[in-house]
Amino acid sequence: MARTGRRPGNQDTREAILRSARDAFADRGFDNASIRQIATGAGVDPALVHHYFGTKEQLFLATVEAPFDPVSLLPQVLDGDLEELPNRLVSTFVRIWDDPVTGAAAVALLRSGLQHDWSARMLREFLTTQILRRVLGQLDLDPAEAPMRGSLVAAQMIGMAMIRYVLKLEPLAGAAPEVVVASLAPTIRRYLLDPLPVP
Amino acid sequence: MARTGRRPGNQDTREAILRSARDAFADRGFDNASIRQIATGAGVDPALVHHYFGTKEQLFLATVEAPFDPVSLLPQVLDGDLEELPNRLVSTFVRIWDDPVTGAAAVALLRSGLQHDWSARMLREFLTTQILRRVLGQLDLDPAEAPMRGSLVAAQMIGMAMIRYVLKLEPLAGAAPEVVVASLAPTIRRYLLDPLPVP
Repeated sequence: MARTGRRPGNQDTREAILRSARDAFADRGFDNASIRQIATGAGVDPALVHHYFGTKEQLFLATVEAPFDPVSLLPQVLDGDLEELPNRLVSTFVRIWDDPVTGAAAVALLRSGLQHDWSARMLREFLTTQILRRVLGQLDLDPAEAPMRGSLVAAQMIGMAMIRYVLKLEPLAGAAPEVVVASLAPTIRRYLLDPLPVP
Repeated sequence: MARTGRRPGNQDTREAILRSARDAFADRGFDNASIRQIATGAGVDPALVHHYFGTKEQLFLATVEAPFDPVSLLPQVLDGDLEELPNRLVSTFVRIWDDPVTGAAAVALLRSGLQHDWSARMLREFLTTQILRRVLGQLDLDPAEAPMRGSLVAAQMIGMAMIRYVLKLEPLAGAAPEVVVASLAPTIRRYLLDPLPVP
C-alpha cells in the first residue's frame, strides 16, 4: 500500500515499530539492536516505542509473537532443588505446548523459524537470549561449557516439539505428559549437569 | 495452466504422476497408497508409473525429494556390534547433513515438513516407513516398545538437525562431528536400548 500524507494512527505506528524492530533484531541480534535505532527506523521518538511496547525485551517478545513471557515461567523451572530441575524444565515446556492457546502460538513460532534465514535468526535469538541464557545463568556452570549445554538442551526440546506437536508422530504425540517428562528429563540432566564429552 | 488436448510429454507425465502420488501418500499414508490408485489419479497406466519411478518406495522417495536413499545407508548404521550402533546412527546422520548437497536437500525436506499439514504428514511417513521401521526392525526390540523408542530417537535427531543446520545455534552448529556423536550417542543408546519409563 502507498503511504498517505496523513500522520499514521496508533495501529500504523505500532506496525511501523514492529517492522523496524523485526529488521533490527534480525540484522543485529537482540543484544546489539537498540530502541533508539528501532525508533529511527520507524520514524518515531524512542519514548513512543517504550510507550507502546515497554522494554526492549517486551518489544522483542511482541516482534517474535512469543507464545509466553519466559520471565514469568522461570520460577516454575528454577525454584526447587537442582536434581529435579530437568523434570521441571520438561514439564513446564510440555505444559506450554500442550495448552491449546500457547501451544498454537509456539507451533507458529517454530514454523516461522523455518521459513526464512531472518526468521530462523529471530527464533535463535529468542531461544538464546530469552530462555537459555536465563536458565543457564541460574546454574553454577563452567562458563566455557554453558553454551554447548544450552544448545544440546535446545536440540532435545525443539526436537520433541517437532515430533509431538508438528509432525505428530505416535506414540510420542499422544503420550501422557508424565511419560514425556520421564523420557526426556534424564537426557536434559545429562546435557546440563554431567561431564561433556571432550572433543 | 489449462490442459491442452495433446497427449502430455514425458515431463508432463512424470509431473502428473508425482502430483497424484503426493496426494495419495499424504491422504492415505505410504502403506495404504497404491501404485494403481496413483496411476488412476494421474490418468496413466500403472506400468508407466513403474517405468518412470520403479517401486512404490522409489516413487515415494522421489515424491518427498528425499535427500538420500535410506536403504543404501542402512548397512552403515546396522552392520557391526549393537553397542556401537548409536554412534553409527548419529555419525551417519551427521555425515548426510554436513554434506553440502544431501544436507541442503535434507534441510529443504525439513522445512517443507513445517509448511502444511500434508507436508508434515509426508515427512512423518518418510521418517516412520523409510527410516525408523527399518532400523527398529533390525533390532531385537519388544514390538510394544519399538514405536516409542523410534519416536524418541526421531525427536533427538530432528532436534539436532534443527539446531545445527536450520537455526545454526552455536556451539553445536560449528562443533566437530565427533563432538556431536559423543554428545548424542548416549541419548540414542538410552532411547533405543535402556528400559523405558513406565507410564
